[in-house]
Amino acid sequence: MNYPIESSSPNTLEVTQRTKIRRSPQRGQYDRTLIYQILDEGLICHVGFVVEGQPFVIPTAYGRVDDRLYLHGSPASRMLRTLQQDVEVCVTVTLLDGLVLARSAYHHSMNYRSVVVFGKATVVEAEQEKFEALRAFTEHVMPDRWAEVRIPSRQEMSGTLVLALPLTEASAKMRTGGPLDDEADYTLPVWAGELPLRLTTNAAIPDSHLLSGIGIPAYVQDYNRS
Amino acid sequence: MNYPIESSSPNTLEVTQRTKIRRSPQRGQYDRTLIYQILDEGLICHVGFVVEGQPFVIPTAYGRVDDRLYLHGSPASRMLRTLQQDVEVCVTVTLLDGLVLARSAYHHSMNYRSVVVFGKATVVEAEQEKFEALRAFTEHVMPDRWAEVRIPSRQEMSGTLVLALPLTEASAKMRTGGPLDDEADYTLPVWAGELPLRLTTNAAIPDSHLLSGIGIPAYVQDYNRS
Repeated sequence: MNYPIESSSPNTLEVTQRTKIRRSPQRGQYDRTLIYQILDEGLICHVGFVVEGQPFVIPTAYGRVDDRLYLHGSPASRMLRTLQQDVEVCVTVTLLDGLVLARSAYHHSMNYRSVVVFGKATVVEAEQEKFEALRAFTEHVMPDRWAEVRIPSRQEMSGTLVLALPLTEASAKMRTGGPLDDEADYTLPVWAGELPLRLTTNAAIPDSHLLSGIGIPAYVQDYNRS
Repeated sequence: MNYPIESSSPNTLEVTQRTKIRRSPQRGQYDRTLIYQILDEGLICHVGFVVEGQPFVIPTAYGRVDDRLYLHGSPASRMLRTLQQDVEVCVTVTLLDGLVLARSAYHHSMNYRSVVVFGKATVVEAEQEKFEALRAFTEHVMPDRWAEVRIPSRQEMSGTLVLALPLTEASAKMRTGGPLDDEADYTLPVWAGELPLRLTTNAAIPDSHLLSGIGIPAYVQDYNRS
């Protein structure tokens, strides 16, 4: 299923049967830079896996280092126990950028950027790679945080299962811009356009046990995802 | 796999083998009101299905009417073609509420509310239900919009495939609150707390072909998801 069906350039991923965008193919992209931008901006992914024919879709955090996507959690997690058994996984990250309001109900849409990754995950055994992956989880969610926190102990390291998924078979899909209405509908007296959406923060809530005199770090105060 | 393993009350969904929350069970909920609140606040779901053993996870819009979740799209979509073949589906909706910053890297977390729905989807054939589902898609994304737009024509209706998934086997999972650190770490001079996240809007962008004199509707201007 995963043999290449189109040739690739260094920065373009090979298109395979399962990454080929079939619906609205003009929205499909295989550019590694774009795919990594979407993965780096997202905060959670949805992991799809199969247990006895039943699909499961579980939201979870992730990190990326170069051409590898990392997942982690408790060794007891059903998801991680399943994924390390040499099975196919699908990881999807979606950023919602706006609501597209057309003059007809039919042409309403959303602007989004999404990435779908296919492949098999493997357990990260090497201590150094595992440590770098754990750093990537923290830095992915909150850049500059790692340098301030207590790093994982040996016990925490061994109590965390880290899986790596190679970013070799992936595609991006996106929609941008305003509505596209039927020609006859442009005369309707209906407001149409785009309502952009973005993830923003409310004021940080200090932990009730915070030592006195510790201010909110700049990377929290100025947090901006995009 | 879907026989009940705990008894239910009228507003509580039965817990089944596949909806039982195994990791952090204290975060699991089966209350119908909570599940519907999460579904109604979310804008996109991630649909998981299996084709020849391969899991796919596709982001898409949805709507809810009473105890049914609706999906829709082109009859040519691989996802919809697959889902109407009496196969198991998993639909997940995730709302990200905040980043939880602990004193140790290990205890970093996220606050979230998610719903996972299992079941089989069926094609909605009845015109009236199909029409109500299409209304639900629009009203779900943008309340009050339906009354202003051109409603679906007969041709658009027949060109849209609508699937219904019963909301009988579902669970919610959520985390709220600040970090929980190891006892010894509370003396570390590290800022800890929660950074709340929310979806917000930027200024609406009117379509370039908008007729003159049509202002931005209040339901767009004052759009607030939560």
